[in-house]
Amino acid sequence: MKRATLDTETANFDLERAIERPWFRTFIMVLIIFNAVILGVLTYRASLPHELVVGLEVIDAAVTYVFAAEILLKLVVYRLLFFRSGWNWFDFIVVGISMIPGAGAFSVLRALRVLRVLRLLHVVPVMKRITEALLKALPGMGAIVAVLALVTYVAAVMATNMFGDTETEEVRQLFGDLPSSALSLFQVMTMDGWRFEVMQKVIDDGHPLSWMFFLIFIFVASFAILNLFIALVVDSLAEEQRAVLKEGFGELEGEIEDIEEEIEEEREQAGGARSEILDLLRELQREVAELKAAVAPPSAP
Amino acid sequence: MKRATLDTETANFDLERAIERPWFRTFIMVLIIFNAVILGVLTYRASLPHELVVGLEVIDAAVTYVFAAEILLKLVVYRLLFFRSGWNWFDFIVVGISMIPGAGAFSVLRALRVLRVLRLLHVVPVMKRITEALLKALPGMGAIVAVLALVTYVAAVMATNMFGDTETEEVRQLFGDLPSSALSLFQVMTMDGWRFEVMQKVIDDGHPLSWMFFLIFIFVASFAILNLFIALVVDSLAEEQRAVLKEGFGELEGEIEDIEEEIEEEREQAGGARSEILDLLRELQREVAELKAAVAPPSAP
Amino acid sequence: MKRATLDTETANFDLERAIERPWFRTFIMVLIIFNAVILGVLTYRASLPHELVVGLEVIDAAVTYVFAAEILLKLVVYRLLFFRSGWNWFDFIVVGISMIPGAGAFSVLRALRVLRVLRLLHVVPVMKRITEALLKALPGMGAIVAVLALVTYVAAVMATNMFGDTETEEVRQLFGDLPSSALSLFQVMTMDGWRFEVMQKVIDDGHPLSWMFFLIFIFVASFAILNLFIALVVDSLAEEQRAVLKEGFGELEGEIEDIEEEIEEEREQAGGARSEILDLLRELQREVAELKAAVAPPSAP
Amino acid sequence: MKRATLDTETANFDLERAIERPWFRTFIMVLIIFNAVILGVLTYRASLPHELVVGLEVIDAAVTYVFAAEILLKLVVYRLLFFRSGWNWFDFIVVGISMIPGAGAFSVLRALRVLRVLRLLHVVPVMKRITEALLKALPGMGAIVAVLALVTYVAAVMATNMFGDTETEEVRQLFGDLPSSALSLFQVMTMDGWRFEVMQKVIDDGHPLSWMFFLIFIFVASFAILNLFIALVVDSLAEEQRAVLKEGFGELEGEIEDIEEEIEEEREQAGGARSEILDLLRELQREVAELKAAVAPPSAP
Repeated sequence: MKRATLDTETANFDLERAIERPWFRTFIMVLIIFNAVILGVLTYRASLPHELVVGLEVIDAAVTYVFAAEILLKLVVYRLLFFRSGWNWFDFIVVGISMIPGAGAFSVLRALRVLRVLRLLHVVPVMKRITEALLKALPGMGAIVAVLALVTYVAAVMATNMFGDTETEEVRQLFGDLPSSALSLFQVMTMDGWRFEVMQKVIDDGHPLSWMFFLIFIFVASFAILNLFIALVVDSLAEEQRAVLKEGFGELEGEIEDIEEEIEEEREQAGGARSEILDLLRELQREVAELKAAVAPPSAP
Repeated sequence: MKRATLDTETANFDLERAIERPWFRTFIMVLIIFNAVILGVLTYRASLPHELVVGLEVIDAAVTYVFAAEILLKLVVYRLLFFRSGWNWFDFIVVGISMIPGAGAFSVLRALRVLRVLRLLHVVPVMKRITEALLKALPGMGAIVAVLALVTYVAAVMATNMFGDTETEEVRQLFGDLPSSALSLFQVMTMDGWRFEVMQKVIDDGHPLSWMFFLIFIFVASFAILNLFIALVVDSLAEEQRAVLKEGFGELEGEIEDIEEEIEEEREQAGGARSEILDLLRELQREVAELKAAVAPPSAP
Repeated sequence: MKRATLDTETANFDLERAIERPWFRTFIMVLIIFNAVILGVLTYRASLPHELVVGLEVIDAAVTYVFAAEILLKLVVYRLLFFRSGWNWFDFIVVGISMIPGAGAFSVLRALRVLRVLRLLHVVPVMKRITEALLKALPGMGAIVAVLALVTYVAAVMATNMFGDTETEEVRQLFGDLPSSALSLFQVMTMDGWRFEVMQKVIDDGHPLSWMFFLIFIFVASFAILNLFIALVVDSLAEEQRAVLKEGFGELEGEIEDIEEEIEEEREQAGGARSEILDLLRELQREVAELKAAVAPPSAP
Repeated sequence: MKRATLDTETANFDLERAIERPWFRTFIMVLIIFNAVILGVLTYRASLPHELVVGLEVIDAAVTYVFAAEILLKLVVYRLLFFRSGWNWFDFIVVGISMIPGAGAFSVLRALRVLRVLRLLHVVPVMKRITEALLKALPGMGAIVAVLALVTYVAAVMATNMFGDTETEEVRQLFGDLPSSALSLFQVMTMDGWRFEVMQKVIDDGHPLSWMFFLIFIFVASFAILNLFIALVVDSLAEEQRAVLKEGFGELEGEIEDIEEEIEEEREQAGGARSEILDLLRELQREVAELKAAVAPPSAP
């Protein structure tokens, strides 16, 4: 039994070494790009000969199985540690989706197959760096996005109550229910056709003062987005800056500490020398006094 | 009488402690979210069974009374201090609006009820921080927004005078009176459909050179907005930076002052030692001179 | 003759004091705002009673004469120095335009009257500061705006040559001549309706590959604008930063120089003391040697 | 033979001096601007008299030959070094395009002639500085643009699969094939008519849930673009900042090193003086001891 375990471990160790090798990563990378091209060509399935489409589908399925095998390999090697990495979860899910039986039948599931190509985002090192930087910036946006979402929700409830109950088809499409209102307000927030596609239709539907509602919403939302943006810039810069300054100040402090040490040392040496000098002087004085006593007695009496 | 006052004060003190407790804040927070959901569901009143709508309205009214009670409680505890806080004013007004008799009848007042949900902005601590940061950034925008408003007003008067007096319905809608002109210029400022929805219609209405007016306005407005933005970024960063630098420079200055002190101390000690040495030496010299005098006299005469 | 000159000078001096007084500035400010309101009300001339319009026109003319008198006053006081200030030129021109005889007849000249209101930009101190900051930022944009203008000109010539010679009215309106092409490309640059209002019409007019032209133009222009923006932010910040750092470093340098001085002083004092000690010691040695000679001779022979 | 070589070299040297002279650069600059004007005027060829068009074409051809001669001159002077400069390649290509025989016949090639005017970008020094700064910023955008392109490609494949197979002409135009989908998604990314020109048409075509796809795409793309922008700002600023700080810290370090040197020097001098003092004191002690011995012996026995 023990030998078997050992064998498995040795095998795992060899597998781990294989999986972590650059050529393996490159192989997967090339396979993903190849797969991306095939999925791109397959969007022209209607105008391609049937045999070619079938052939490409077979190749695509084969690539999917290679990806599945890769994930299985990683599962064997890392076992539960595999699920510690968010990227592994990502691979697991996007490859899993492609293998759902009947995935070929539903257009949405078939469409989701292409998400596999996003695996490039963490397989290509330079993209991984960027993607992780982007993901790291997300939490910093949390609170302000929550504020923006709350404001939009409140505005959407108001808009639905005020403008939604109408005979006009166009306005009902814009503000007829809560999700539509939220979408329309998001459109207004992006400044895309906010006046004639949205606001003017509401005004013409018997709400002549609704421009106040829209202008207030535009100002509040723009201002929040502007500040979201500024907060991100300032945070990134402040972090960058802190690093640069830390280095500069660190060096200076080092040199100043050197000086302090030097002064300390000098003080010690000088102090030692001074007490030695004073000791010598006092001894000298004593001896001179003795000498004087030796010389003077004859003249004293 | 005195006892009564004491009792009231004790009661107030207990109330204050209750109001400031985390569970009270959490209770209000949950209630606001619950209320937000109800107000959201109520936007579907047309397609909901009448009994449910009535039930939800009753719950909504109950929640409003809880909020009113909360404000009353705060008024009792803090008395006039209550009105020192802008957030209390905000609560007072948004809850007050919901309680205006007949508020259910007018769609606008009923729509304003949902503003209560914005109370989350200061009840949830993380949102409060963001909201107050946003509000703090407002005054810094004042002057440049005033410049922008002035430029827009002047341009709106010009546009109304130049383009407003026309037979064309579309152009009259855009520039027929001062508020319309201001709105149209704001639309141009947001770059939304500025060419074919606004400018081209004016050109086609017999103002072939009006593109000059619009382009100058776009340039001036974009430039002002750009600078508004830059000013905000630079201000935020400079403040952030000043803090970081202050800390770094402060530490360095501290160390340099340590050195200065050390040098000062050494100077004092060294100076003391030197004068002691010199005193000793001079004394020694004197004694040696005396010794010499004691020894020499016999040989002098 | 001399006395007359003196009188004039005294008068000028008094006038200068009057013009520079706060109440004079406030008076002009209030007058401009009052004038702005009148010009705003006059945009409704069609729906106002004729007498009121005439009355407002008279008041407007009166205000214009007050402004003219103010400029004349300044001319008398400052003479040719008056034209040293850009703001004075601005006042001179905008007030001058309002006084051109027959200005009331032409809508453009009448519309330009309202430019007088922009005098607020330098009469209100806080606005003056903002406006001058904006004007100061202009030269820094010069070179990159020139690059952008050159790229747009070249693209406009290309677009006119490629797309302008067509039967389609809509495309002729977009790219029929050089100014139209420049305007259309500016529209594309602002991302307003670039696809279906501009590009798609050219594609449908028999230029299936024109998307390449437009996408390249969008990328180049966006990239240039992005960098224009970044350059402005970086410049403003770097300037701000340099000031903050200069102060911080300056203080540190001051303290370090203090230390250097202290060390210098200590070195001088210590050096003086050392040479005094050494002198005393050598003298002592000499005296001891003499003493020894005085004592020893008897035992030497 | 040798003399000939020498002559050629001398000639080259003279030519090089001529090419590098300011007046030569100014001459070329003026010629490019002159050429730009002619090419602008030629866009009106349809409404100009035939003789004038012919004349302008002749002048344009002449200018092209002057540019060709300039390039030839540079080739003679710098030989293969000529191709070391990207700008020379640029000149070579844009002038070369104008000289392709039959270029006058094809509208695209004729349109490309105007690219010659872009030579100003490196002939005018101030524009050259800007242009090179822009080009230097490009590589920093590489990785994030690649991420954005990958996301757009994946989304375009998905959109084509999900929405492309339809009877509706409008939706087929938007998402009928891969390039159309990519273009439509780029349009959505620029926020231009994303709702009613793109999304609503897909929703109305039987994809009621497609708003999820579009909103996710808008959020991901906006977020990536935002971060691209922030990265550029932060990079530019950090570089700028590093320079400023380096200078400030460098100066401080210099002064601190001065102090260190001063302390070092003082320590050396003080150390020397101390040992001299101690030597003198010990010698003195020895001599006093000898003196004592000389005085005391008589009293010892």
